Amino acid sequence: MNNNADKSWLISEEGFNLTGASETRFAVSNGYFAVRGTTEELYDSETPGTFVAGVFDKWRAAVTELVNLPYPFGMRIYIDREYVDLRQCNVNEHKRELDMYSGMLTREYLVTDARGRSMRVKTVRLASMEEGRRHLGAAHITVICENFNGVICVEQFIDCNVYNLKNNPNERERHFHAVTYADDIYAAVVCETKDEKYNVSIGVGANVSGVRNGNHIGRHSRCFDNFTAIYDDFEVQEGTIIQIERITTVQRRGELCSPEICEGLELGWDKISTGHCAAMAEIWEKANITIEGDPEADRALRFCIYSLICSANPSDESVSIGAKGLHGEGYKGHVFWDTELFMLPFFTYSLPDYARTLLSYRWHTLEGAKKNAELGGYKGARYPWESADTGLEETPQWGFDYKRNKVRIWTGDIEIHITCDIVYALREYYLATGDEKFLKERATPIILETARFWASRLEYDEKRDVYEIKGVIGPDEFHEHVDNNAYTNSLVKWNMLYAAELSDDTEEAKIWIKMAEKIFIPRSGGLIEQYDGFFKKKDVLVTEFDENHMPLWPEGVDITKLSNYQLVKQADVIMLMHLLDGEFTPEEMQKNYIYYENRTMHKSSLSPSMYALLGVRTGQYGKAYTNFMRTVMTDIADNQGNTAHGIHAAAAGGAWCAMFYGFLGVKVDKNGELTVNPWLPEKWKKITMNFYFRGERMRLTCTKDGFELENLG
Amino acid sequence: MNNNADKSWLISEEGFNLTGASETRFAVSNGYFAVRGTTEELYDSETPGTFVAGVFDKWRAAVTELVNLPYPFGMRIYIDREYVDLRQCNVNEHKRELDMYSGMLTREYLVTDARGRSMRVKTVRLASMEEGRRHLGAAHITVICENFNGVICVEQFIDCNVYNLKNNPNERERHFHAVTYADDIYAAVVCETKDEKYNVSIGVGANVSGVRNGNHIGRHSRCFDNFTAIYDDFEVQEGTIIQIERITTVQRRGELCSPEICEGLELGWDKISTGHCAAMAEIWEKANITIEGDPEADRALRFCIYSLICSANPSDESVSIGAKGLHGEGYKGHVFWDTELFMLPFFTYSLPDYARTLLSYRWHTLEGAKKNAELGGYKGARYPWESADTGLEETPQWGFDYKRNKVRIWTGDIEIHITCDIVYALREYYLATGDEKFLKERATPIILETARFWASRLEYDEKRDVYEIKGVIGPDEFHEHVDNNAYTNSLVKWNMLYAAELSDDTEEAKIWIKMAEKIFIPRSGGLIEQYDGFFKKKDVLVTEFDENHMPLWPEGVDITKLSNYQLVKQADVIMLMHLLDGEFTPEEMQKNYIYYENRTMHKSSLSPSMYALLGVRTGQYGKAYTNFMRTVMTDIADNQGNTAHGIHAAAAGGAWCAMFYGFLGVKVDKNGELTVNPWLPEKWKKITMNFYFRGERMRLTCTKDGFELENLG
Repeated sequence: MNNNADKSWLISEEGFNLTGASETRFAVSNGYFAVRGTTEELYDSETPGTFVAGVFDKWRAAVTELVNLPYPFGMRIYIDREYVDLRQCNVNEHKRELDMYSGMLTREYLVTDARGRSMRVKTVRLASMEEGRRHLGAAHITVICENFNGVICVEQFIDCNVYNLKNNPNERERHFHAVTYADDIYAAVVCETKDEKYNVSIGVGANVSGVRNGNHIGRHSRCFDNFTAIYDDFEVQEGTIIQIERITTVQRRGELCSPEICEGLELGWDKISTGHCAAMAEIWEKANITIEGDPEADRALRFCIYSLICSANPSDESVSIGAKGLHGEGYKGHVFWDTELFMLPFFTYSLPDYARTLLSYRWHTLEGAKKNAELGGYKGARYPWESADTGLEETPQWGFDYKRNKVRIWTGDIEIHITCDIVYALREYYLATGDEKFLKERATPIILETARFWASRLEYDEKRDVYEIKGVIGPDEFHEHVDNNAYTNSLVKWNMLYAAELSDDTEEAKIWIKMAEKIFIPRSGGLIEQYDGFFKKKDVLVTEFDENHMPLWPEGVDITKLSNYQLVKQADVIMLMHLLDGEFTPEEMQKNYIYYENRTMHKSSLSPSMYALLGVRTGQYGKAYTNFMRTVMTDIADNQGNTAHGIHAAAAGGAWCAMFYGFLGVKVDKNGELTVNPWLPEKWKKITMNFYFRGERMRLTCTKDGFELENLG
Repeated sequence: MNNNADKSWLISEEGFNLTGASETRFAVSNGYFAVRGTTEELYDSETPGTFVAGVFDKWRAAVTELVNLPYPFGMRIYIDREYVDLRQCNVNEHKRELDMYSGMLTREYLVTDARGRSMRVKTVRLASMEEGRRHLGAAHITVICENFNGVICVEQFIDCNVYNLKNNPNERERHFHAVTYADDIYAAVVCETKDEKYNVSIGVGANVSGVRNGNHIGRHSRCFDNFTAIYDDFEVQEGTIIQIERITTVQRRGELCSPEICEGLELGWDKISTGHCAAMAEIWEKANITIEGDPEADRALRFCIYSLICSANPSDESVSIGAKGLHGEGYKGHVFWDTELFMLPFFTYSLPDYARTLLSYRWHTLEGAKKNAELGGYKGARYPWESADTGLEETPQWGFDYKRNKVRIWTGDIEIHITCDIVYALREYYLATGDEKFLKERATPIILETARFWASRLEYDEKRDVYEIKGVIGPDEFHEHVDNNAYTNSLVKWNMLYAAELSDDTEEAKIWIKMAEKIFIPRSGGLIEQYDGFFKKKDVLVTEFDENHMPLWPEGVDITKLSNYQLVKQADVIMLMHLLDGEFTPEEMQKNYIYYENRTMHKSSLSPSMYALLGVRTGQYGKAYTNFMRTVMTDIADNQGNTAHGIHAAAAGGAWCAMFYGFLGVKVDKNGELTVNPWLPEKWKKITMNFYFRGERMRLTCTKDGFELENLG
């Protein structure tokens, strides 16, 4: 089925290790629903996660969160009515392998129980990427009885005993009521979320597709209030091979899934997997990048791209990609600026229909953004720092520190740059696609409303005759309540000027231009000061690194008082220099890069990609490569230490950005002129990728000797 | 608290081994409720069992079964919000110890997590044996933080995600609906069984009784539809010691447990445990037996007695002891002849008030027994082979073999000797206690109704002028549908004659006597033939034994056709010779003992005790001791291989019988004359026990030189 099954397409794991990071890496997801890579048996040390994009609920939780739904991939095997619990057995072999090309996860193990009975089990699972079939999951299961006679029972179950924040005794929550069903065809559950009354219907059906040297005795089912299952019993002997096809349906609706389960069973594994693989192949044809000469970077960048592909659904404009993909509960499934500035470029150039869908999410949530502005006493639209299903601000106002002291969280109030970040992505999409219809109908209303917000948000300083933005948080969250963050002020200025271009209301546009021109940007001798007074903070340099090349805290730093230092959490000024690179000279860029790079802790996974990108632009090639490897390895090496909570989708998108804008040096100016200016690290022999530009398919091939840009039409 | 904490009172386990047999051995039970010895954390490989005597339900199950209720002893510990899962940690030490004297289970472990944080945890748990407090469970918990600073969260939970037959995918069932509650004082659940509408109210409360070198931050709770918990957070440092008292209430009622939880919290661990220990001490004063010179036998017999003590509640006449105690789901919690013929003697002589209560259960279920007779077309009362809450026959008519073929189960139809067995126990109780009131009011109605049953059940053979009982199963279940089982026929005869003695209706009594005298008993040259034609079956001898001294199948035996052999599952003729020993000469007893002993597979745990008992009587001393050790070790060594399903209460009671009637040679004749005729195995130096006889307290001390029987008044 997969002709590309060489190692560059595989993410593998040997041994029976159940880690949260592996659950994230081995999630199967199609942007509509996702199931974390927990075992079929579902051991209680695992953290199952089943998510449906857009299904949020608050109830007793601090904030609205992506709902962890019943686990639909359950399967347990019983030999003579004894459950084969791998933790109680000798696990002779255990391997999991994600084939990114086919988007299928294989697990294979050989297990010997305490009575010496050995069994080999292989499961292949997928979440269909085929259009019209994204509600379908499928699995192909092979059980080989190695050395015993008896009866094997295979249980296919849905387990509703799942929680959000399962392992946090203070905040654990179950967000749905479940009604379970079972008959001889399928087991099913219909969920209703507690606050929001979203419905999700989940079902499992199975076909015994083959039994060799054995006998399928029969099928029965059992249904409990939080657990439902179907069972197949087999008479087996040494050498018996059982093959089962399992169909899972996950749908946003309140009716039973019976028709879809039956449809899925009729289609069968072959048709479903073939359709899914064809869809994946089509996507890879558009989205793949190869780096010849550096297998580690090549495979890791592919995993970044794979993670992005699996997180988006081009058919649903009501949802966008959360900071952790659909792969975990981290950040509650909320959507941040991560999507627009880090992930969107990949979609804009590789899968522009996906990009349009993702940006439409902001259009659909414009009313919520207007409400946010109004609640703050402002005009226009302020997009929420954390967004869920309505566009209303979802950032919690309060959290708890580890001693359960209440701590005020300010990002939802004052990390306002998200609003101009969205506008930036809208323009980037327009420049790359020339999608006039989208610009007119969906982007422009957003852009005008955001400019109205900024006009009302700016504070005029009569003495200096400047507009200021005080009391914000910039991208660098080590420093809160700062005035005139260079990044924010520059993007706001740009946002207002761009809005003025698009506006039909010349009076309003004139005011925006006048105000924008007077927005204060702190500079000091070629160095951009991150915000008013940043250069007066204590200066310390990053000099030590851990085994993943991640910075260690400089000696003597009091990490409870980070606002006193010039240490930076993540790219802030450097991010600005990428987005508005036309406004800075090469010398300024280099000077700022060196200054900030030495002071950046990369405590956000959004950081290394920007230092990779700007590293190439500023000739800091060593730093560029180090930071590129940091960003592509984020989830493979778990170098942020929290891959268990979901993929770092912005690091994945940022890796693509570092490749595209950085190493390949692609640039589209405001007139829509595309230029390429590649630089390749020493190891790299050749980079190949396709992308879309203004509706045309381009193939870009770069070597150390130059590049070729073909228009494939 | 316990001055007897030498090894003879302790059942210990070293290491972190979670076996079903240990869950049974370490159950805490007071006859009102029981909780199996699963860990506080409740790992999913464990088989939790929480039972309330008399709470049965059928719903979708094959037969009415003792309901597995929510697990009320749950406790998990989180360090900085990470669950300390022992399976993911280095378990440096782990020990469990049941102190039979105090009836308390201690668990202590030292664990180091993946981050190197070490914690020592000690829990002591009990189910109160104090009268008026049998609804109370209590635990004392100590957590010692060995080497870290942070926050420890202690979660006390009730888990409703429990099943009957959890590990059997074909028959797994949940028999109750649960409604959960939680507030800052307690977490609770109210259950209603699905068919029978029994209510059980369970609650958990906790008091932080001490924190040294640390700080109790606060209390909160969380409640889900199938799980409810209270939480205490502690700021800890190296050396912090936390002490918590947990109160659990388990009650048969439909109202919330809040008053009892508050009462329990007010009483506190000290008062509850002191009261419980005083009750235990009082029981042991009556029930203990010591065997000097044989520590293994001494401790094992004590464990048998302990198991019986914990299985009975002298305050509830509506329940009796199931074949597996209250310690597991084996035999569905049903009551068999095990109770009357194997367990009752212990209670009759050591705790006669318990015996009266247990026998009263048969009086309360007499209506059910009459219904059974009526349904079979007979008169009088036929007690069910398996009894639950009504006295109606609860034996399933159909079961499944391992290939899920339907198999007819006949014991409920034709293993009718249970009815005369109950009468035997009633007479034994009367002879030992002289309880005329009970004899008149409760025993006599039963005895008369059973005689009426037998009179209608007997079949007259005109040719031989005898009464026969055809088509039965005797105690030996290897042979079904047999005619004239010697055991059954002899006991029926005895039953009818005894009824005639007690009857006021001389006409009816005369008929009974006439019929009884003509009941056919198969004998053949001094050998009792187990049933008509037994001696014509293929003859094979038992010659090989396993490591637990249990018989192995003789070579060549086809175990699917056991009815073709003279192999015997368990004591049958030998059991008869114990019960009606006056009817056999010493020579007959010896001859039969040798014959049947060589052909008994001991595939029932009821068997070895009778061979021990009769071994002494017939001078087969080696066999007597071997079989005594088999029966006392049944659950400690798990020599039947199924201790996981519950204790072998009949083996425990049988061990007591073997000691009392066998080694000590105590006999009470039908005139109420008590004689003692001890024989001690070589190792044994001295046996000491107290018992009650006709309301007087007796102390019996035996050595090889003789015995002393003191009347303590």
